[in-house]
Amino acid sequence: MTLVDVVPPPAPAAPGFSLAVVSLDLSDSGAADILVQGRPDIIVHLAAVVSGEAEVDFEKGYRINLDGTRALFDAVRHGHAVDGYTPRLVFASSLAVFGAPFPEKIPDTYHLTPLTSYGTQKAIGELLLDDYTRRGFFDGIALRLPTICIRPGKPNKAASGFFSGILREPLNGKVAVLPVDRSVRHYFASPRAAVQFLLHACTLNTAALGHRRALTMPGLSATVAEQIDALRKSAGDEAAALIRDEPDAGIAIIVAGWPKDFDTSRAEELGFRAESSFEEIIEIYRQDELGAPA
Amino acid sequence: MTLVDVVPPPAPAAPGFSLAVVSLDLSDSGAADILVQGRPDIIVHLAAVVSGEAEVDFEKGYRINLDGTRALFDAVRHGHAVDGYTPRLVFASSLAVFGAPFPEKIPDTYHLTPLTSYGTQKAIGELLLDDYTRRGFFDGIALRLPTICIRPGKPNKAASGFFSGILREPLNGKVAVLPVDRSVRHYFASPRAAVQFLLHACTLNTAALGHRRALTMPGLSATVAEQIDALRKSAGDEAAALIRDEPDAGIAIIVAGWPKDFDTSRAEELGFRAESSFEEIIEIYRQDELGAPA
Repeated sequence: MTLVDVVPPPAPAAPGFSLAVVSLDLSDSGAADILVQGRPDIIVHLAAVVSGEAEVDFEKGYRINLDGTRALFDAVRHGHAVDGYTPRLVFASSLAVFGAPFPEKIPDTYHLTPLTSYGTQKAIGELLLDDYTRRGFFDGIALRLPTICIRPGKPNKAASGFFSGILREPLNGKVAVLPVDRSVRHYFASPRAAVQFLLHACTLNTAALGHRRALTMPGLSATVAEQIDALRKSAGDEAAALIRDEPDAGIAIIVAGWPKDFDTSRAEELGFRAESSFEEIIEIYRQDELGAPA
Repeated sequence: MTLVDVVPPPAPAAPGFSLAVVSLDLSDSGAADILVQGRPDIIVHLAAVVSGEAEVDFEKGYRINLDGTRALFDAVRHGHAVDGYTPRLVFASSLAVFGAPFPEKIPDTYHLTPLTSYGTQKAIGELLLDDYTRRGFFDGIALRLPTICIRPGKPNKAASGFFSGILREPLNGKVAVLPVDRSVRHYFASPRAAVQFLLHACTLNTAALGHRRALTMPGLSATVAEQIDALRKSAGDEAAALIRDEPDAGIAIIVAGWPKDFDTSRAEELGFRAESSFEEIIEIYRQDELGAPA
């Protein structure tokens, strides 16, 4: 496995397989060609300037998220022309390809209406992936990942950060701030589910996908109140009492524009699975981050 | 008005207004910047490598249809940064952004599933136009035009050519070949309607469009049999008898993948209008191409 990032990516201590670490900027001329020189069987393309930064720095977002992605796709295409190279290419897309207004449950056949430059760049990546796959240059699949919860680590400034924070902080005995109403509904999967999505996409039989290679991943549609109920069941009233309601109109407006639920029957038929309750999501956090027994 | 094309575009003899003619390749470095130097109030972007050619020449299609379009959009963006330049930008998109399977009547909210590189490039153009408009760089609107019928001039090799040919040729006393079954349904508007679509898009109040700037234009959904009935009513049995049924399985397969009808209520609410019968479409051809009185 070769890990690639614009900064040197941290390598696991004992991966159990041969591992190389490369640091480069995918949008630099020739960088993508270096990456495909070794003809990897599977390419997982996660790299991106994140939503907020792509909105603040228009040119950087397009340079990395659009031009960088296209450079990678074209490097594979050139390899295909030389020796028939046709890897599996897994592209991490985003729910940000959808923008309000939309139906309560968004189907895979709903049109892409991004309301950010990041979402636009991801939607273009999906279209390119479909066309390059149709042409036979690679065998592509794009996954739109739910909001990952419970995200480990420290609180961050992302507008979505509280969805993880209101569980993670109390589970660690700390106070968490809730900036929106408890009736707010959103769409989640655990970090463990996300890893399984990517691994499954690396090896599944893509014949059933036809020309439509972008899939919204299964997730759990839940309200903040349902999150907190699960926390209470798992860690007691004292944990739930660590959540402070501090309404923030700015965050509330942003979150109101986000999707709440999806029809993911297509992905489920292909074997993708997510959690079905927040109790399960909390238990996964306890096992994977707090050392609880499986 | 400035007419621009990669080959010198034919200028009308007495346009009644100041007219310049420019020949350049939009994908050449700096070419787009030259075009916006004079700060035109309205830009109508029709240019494209057509469907068949973009499928045969992958790199040319992406260079002209994607990079050329983006170069034009970025030239306007740079102008906007310099002096607040914010023109109306009308982009001719295509029904090729949709690929089978789809519902009988495709709504504006149906997802884009192009099955050609040309359709992919047009879909990406729509996404870029939405994002650049949302950013305030220009005031964009994208029109997906129906199949234009009756296309004047000589028969061509386009798979869709017969839809015009079976009317145009008999109206000029000539034999026409029909390569598909008479039950085939497709989606049409006259050349006069197409011109009106573009003119209306140049001046309409775009506030009602919100962030969704791509509109499928109204059209007439009709079968080949309905086309021929209209020809018979307009020009008699002898004209209809000039159509020779010569089934072509290759063309039949291509046409089977094309959309048949659209829900265009959004465009109609904004004032776009098309013909409601093939009698009307034939009469427009008689007036505009054969010199019949209006």
